[in-house]
Amino acid sequence: MEFYYYTLLAGIIAIIYALFAAYITLKKEEGNKKMQEIASAIKSGSAAYLNRQLKTIAIFAVILAILFLFLPNGYEITIAFLTGAIASYLTAYLGMNVAVRANVRTAKIAEKGTNAAFKTAIIGGSVTGFAAVGFGLIGLSLLIMYLTISKVEILIGFGFGASLVSLFARVGGGIYTKAADVGADLVGKTELNLPEDDPRNPAVIADNVGDNVGDCAGMSADVFESYAVTLVAALLIAYGISHASVINFAYPLYVAAIGVISSLLALLFINVKGDNATLAIYKGIGSAVIIAAVLDFALTWYLSLPLAYFYSVLSGLVLAILLFWITDYYTGSGKKAVVKVADAAKGGGGTDVIMGLAVGLRTTWFPAVVIAIAIFVSYISAGLYGIGIAAVGMLSLTATILTIDSFGPITDNAGGIAEMAGLQENVRKVTDKLDAIGNTTKATTKGFAIGGAALSATALFVAFAQAVGLSSIDALNSIVTIGIFIGAMMPFIFSSFLMEAVGKAANLMVEEVRRQVKTIKGLLQGKAKPDYARAVDIATVNALKSLVIPELIAILTPIAIGLILGKEALGGLLVGMIPSSFMLALFMANSGATMDNAKKYIEEGHFGGKGSDAHKAAVIGDTVGDPLKDTAGPALNSMIKVVSTISILLAPVFIAYTLL
Amino acid sequence: MEFYYYTLLAGIIAIIYALFAAYITLKKEEGNKKMQEIASAIKSGSAAYLNRQLKTIAIFAVILAILFLFLPNGYEITIAFLTGAIASYLTAYLGMNVAVRANVRTAKIAEKGTNAAFKTAIIGGSVTGFAAVGFGLIGLSLLIMYLTISKVEILIGFGFGASLVSLFARVGGGIYTKAADVGADLVGKTELNLPEDDPRNPAVIADNVGDNVGDCAGMSADVFESYAVTLVAALLIAYGISHASVINFAYPLYVAAIGVISSLLALLFINVKGDNATLAIYKGIGSAVIIAAVLDFALTWYLSLPLAYFYSVLSGLVLAILLFWITDYYTGSGKKAVVKVADAAKGGGGTDVIMGLAVGLRTTWFPAVVIAIAIFVSYISAGLYGIGIAAVGMLSLTATILTIDSFGPITDNAGGIAEMAGLQENVRKVTDKLDAIGNTTKATTKGFAIGGAALSATALFVAFAQAVGLSSIDALNSIVTIGIFIGAMMPFIFSSFLMEAVGKAANLMVEEVRRQVKTIKGLLQGKAKPDYARAVDIATVNALKSLVIPELIAILTPIAIGLILGKEALGGLLVGMIPSSFMLALFMANSGATMDNAKKYIEEGHFGGKGSDAHKAAVIGDTVGDPLKDTAGPALNSMIKVVSTISILLAPVFIAYTLL
Repeated sequence: MEFYYYTLLAGIIAIIYALFAAYITLKKEEGNKKMQEIASAIKSGSAAYLNRQLKTIAIFAVILAILFLFLPNGYEITIAFLTGAIASYLTAYLGMNVAVRANVRTAKIAEKGTNAAFKTAIIGGSVTGFAAVGFGLIGLSLLIMYLTISKVEILIGFGFGASLVSLFARVGGGIYTKAADVGADLVGKTELNLPEDDPRNPAVIADNVGDNVGDCAGMSADVFESYAVTLVAALLIAYGISHASVINFAYPLYVAAIGVISSLLALLFINVKGDNATLAIYKGIGSAVIIAAVLDFALTWYLSLPLAYFYSVLSGLVLAILLFWITDYYTGSGKKAVVKVADAAKGGGGTDVIMGLAVGLRTTWFPAVVIAIAIFVSYISAGLYGIGIAAVGMLSLTATILTIDSFGPITDNAGGIAEMAGLQENVRKVTDKLDAIGNTTKATTKGFAIGGAALSATALFVAFAQAVGLSSIDALNSIVTIGIFIGAMMPFIFSSFLMEAVGKAANLMVEEVRRQVKTIKGLLQGKAKPDYARAVDIATVNALKSLVIPELIAILTPIAIGLILGKEALGGLLVGMIPSSFMLALFMANSGATMDNAKKYIEEGHFGGKGSDAHKAAVIGDTVGDPLKDTAGPALNSMIKVVSTISILLAPVFIAYTLL
Repeated sequence: MEFYYYTLLAGIIAIIYALFAAYITLKKEEGNKKMQEIASAIKSGSAAYLNRQLKTIAIFAVILAILFLFLPNGYEITIAFLTGAIASYLTAYLGMNVAVRANVRTAKIAEKGTNAAFKTAIIGGSVTGFAAVGFGLIGLSLLIMYLTISKVEILIGFGFGASLVSLFARVGGGIYTKAADVGADLVGKTELNLPEDDPRNPAVIADNVGDNVGDCAGMSADVFESYAVTLVAALLIAYGISHASVINFAYPLYVAAIGVISSLLALLFINVKGDNATLAIYKGIGSAVIIAAVLDFALTWYLSLPLAYFYSVLSGLVLAILLFWITDYYTGSGKKAVVKVADAAKGGGGTDVIMGLAVGLRTTWFPAVVIAIAIFVSYISAGLYGIGIAAVGMLSLTATILTIDSFGPITDNAGGIAEMAGLQENVRKVTDKLDAIGNTTKATTKGFAIGGAALSATALFVAFAQAVGLSSIDALNSIVTIGIFIGAMMPFIFSSFLMEAVGKAANLMVEEVRRQVKTIKGLLQGKAKPDYARAVDIATVNALKSLVIPELIAILTPIAIGLILGKEALGGLLVGMIPSSFMLALFMANSGATMDNAKKYIEEGHFGGKGSDAHKAAVIGDTVGDPLKDTAGPALNSMIKVVSTISILLAPVFIAYTLL
């Protein structure tokens, strides 16, 4: 049997499981009419956004697809590109459509206690997780079947398709979710003194939609992309190093298939006992890592491959869990750093933010060191190929990670629905607890996503060098130096546009909420319903409008550098961009998470509790942290991968034509 | 005549001018008794800090000097090291001692109008500027005289001496100034509703001392360091490329000597007509650039050297003025970006900071592009040597830049003294106007300092590669990749400690001010004097205490990487660190400057003016921006240079011993 049948099979198993999980989820009770009404508003808002985003992507995709036809093997590349894009969108679509149904069901089942609700949300989240790996493996396997191994460079089209969707989904979803969230909070909490998720707040539905389009669809596209491009990079490296060796080609795919099995088994270990939610998450990822490690070892041994291959894969697996741990260590609720920020809030919003940024900056050291070690270990084990399979090892955990992550928006929404529908105190206690767990999972999986993006970009960088035929990229060559400076700058300018977009869109949201409060009579008394759809529309339009410039920066900069300055400069750009983006993303994501949890720590009653001056200061910190952690930080993941994939994709062009 | 006599002469001219300027300054009237009292408190606080800082530096310096004795040519290196350290400290000492005397004289002469006060402050500031280049050139020339050219690698000791002092002065001064400033503002402005520089605020003297030890002594040490290490790097590169060619060795020194002449002539053009302060600054730097360019061209022609050398120098000169311009474009008072941030303040402290960070991130693109172009132009003109002399060209403007910069703390202090001594409205108007000009000069010269640091670090990187004998530093080599990741991380972890130190020390200051307000009866009524010395002491002790860890990180990381992973990894560290630090420093410095000026814009009466909600929000943004722009951002300059110089200094060790 050809090797790609195994991965095809693994992909099909993943999709069967995903459909099964979706079926189980949909079978659950939906709750009372009010809950259904709210859920339906969230559902239609989310679907509307995803559809409009699709149109924007389609324009870009069609233009690019046509241009790709002019490349060598253009026809195949275009097919691969569209396959990647469609697979990514299908993942986001299926995952999110189940998530927006799992939310209300989680709220309903919360009557029966924490455990039942936890399970419902996890199963709902697992749809996204397994859809991602399923569509990824099926798409890739079919392409390999259809092409021949000798045309492996065409697979980069698949990676770029995933990258393009991810770029839009991450950027658009990120702007959407924070414009709505910040806008809702600024007026709702600060001016009108409404609690979170109060149905009188006109932006509340938009806020809940944002959780789905940002944290669920955006995140799934991001991790799907890492998964897809990592596999492609490993295949390209394998091919670049040993053209004929099928086993080197098959090995990363087998590791990915093992990831499906271990993630399925790991689902059995994700359960919450008592209050220890963090433990549940650790059990999930820990068991996935251990099972994968055992099976990967067995695989390597069975295939009589050098054990060094296994060490490379293992270094990727260990990296994943270390990044998980360090994110929790710094940003987990009640942790030392979080308390420090909460303590600084006593001095006002200024000192809160100063300390929050300080913590975010601090969080870079450990990830930088461990990723450096992982790269080194995998390299001395198996050379450049080792870096490729280390990345595959890490990303083979995708299904587990996305399951845990998608749990977040579901429980967040469940909490919102419980609040808006006025469910009983004991139900809301359960959904609040799950919401808090969801916040932790969102933060920790972000650490994985950032690390995964950096490692896969590093693998892509290696593949790029092979594709353009560079055996060294010398930092002493000043054309490379130029690239390095431009590359190091890219994450800064890119995230600048995202921060600004959130600031602007949030302000528009604030104005809209103020307008509704003023013009709709009886709104604050709960006698009249706000116009949720207007707020949803503002978030949608502005998210889609503001994503164009950053997208163009990400796509056109590498093309311009490659065409004007040539492949060495473009290599330099990747060298400068990847670490710079990794640090900036960690800084942003973790600053935001810490300030968020510092606020929650105060809300739990510390340093004066809710309504105190410290709390007001912490709310300011949380506002600043919001676009850092949910818009700019995560979008950098997509940016570095899109830049890397397009550089490889256009390698033949950069080899043939360069101005200098 | 040997070439080093010319630079010695230029150095002596600079010192004679500096002493003359000091004499003119001291001859001016000191004002009434109250003013003298206040000035004397600032003076003694500043001197006390500089002396205690000296003791801390001395401990490090003595330990290092002893260790250096074990290096090849250890005796000479130790002498060079101590010469560099002493020259830097002398600059800071002379410059600051005049600045703390020029402040009260500026306040006094402000009675006679803007022009007279402007001139007094500029002449006072020029002492620092010319002392820096004077001591730099004299120190270097004497070392070259004493050594022989064949021992040129010893000069790196001089550079490292300057670096060590700069690291302490920038970090310590930066923490001091912002701990005092933030602490004074948090209680003074927010809780007690006291205006800026109110004598009833116990932290007010510490705040004014901070301007001197941070903006004057810290900045002068930073730019002195860039000046010294750039010259050393150019000499090392010249020697590495053409051992015997004395003219290549002399050329950068001649360019530096020309810098003294053009800076002296440029002083004639720095004058303020009407209200246009920015124009005065542009005239100053513009004339310095034009005169230097003409003279450098003449020099190159006279020496019959290739015109390509001149193009390299010119690219450095042009870079300087472009960095000046872009900083002003984004952060200058009333500029578009500033108004945008002020506008965002209407939404609260959160949106103000979001927009401020967005602007800061945005400011990186232009400097990255122009520094890349400058490196490229100089490289294609004259190879690696071109990069060295481009950096020298840029830094040849040091005297002008430092003059303009040191104007800032003098006028800031003058404003403080005028306020505290209760001078008349018309005098305060003049000092307020000068203070505003000073804020602009501080921000724009920071752009120069950051660019200068990046360019000189790049030159040092080239010199490092020569010193360890690497003809290429290949980013595809995974040992280099490790270095790149660690290097890109260093600026983040380093600035994390500084941000935290400011947050902590500011909180202690807040507590002290609150304590004094509570325990000293009649303080707020102006009947009793606060205990200024206690506040000064708190800032001093905490600044010196918190600088140890970041210093050790900066010094020990390159040593550890070099010893454990070897010279390739250390080269990678420099490759990762320089651009990452450049972007982070720009982001931090410019975010802070923009938020500062946004606050001022509101205070001028826009968006509700002083006391409005927007103003309160902008004050929060200013607080966040303070340590970004005056502590963490600028300290990165010193960090990258100290890491680069120590890497060169210990090159023989890394060549001989490496673990891997």
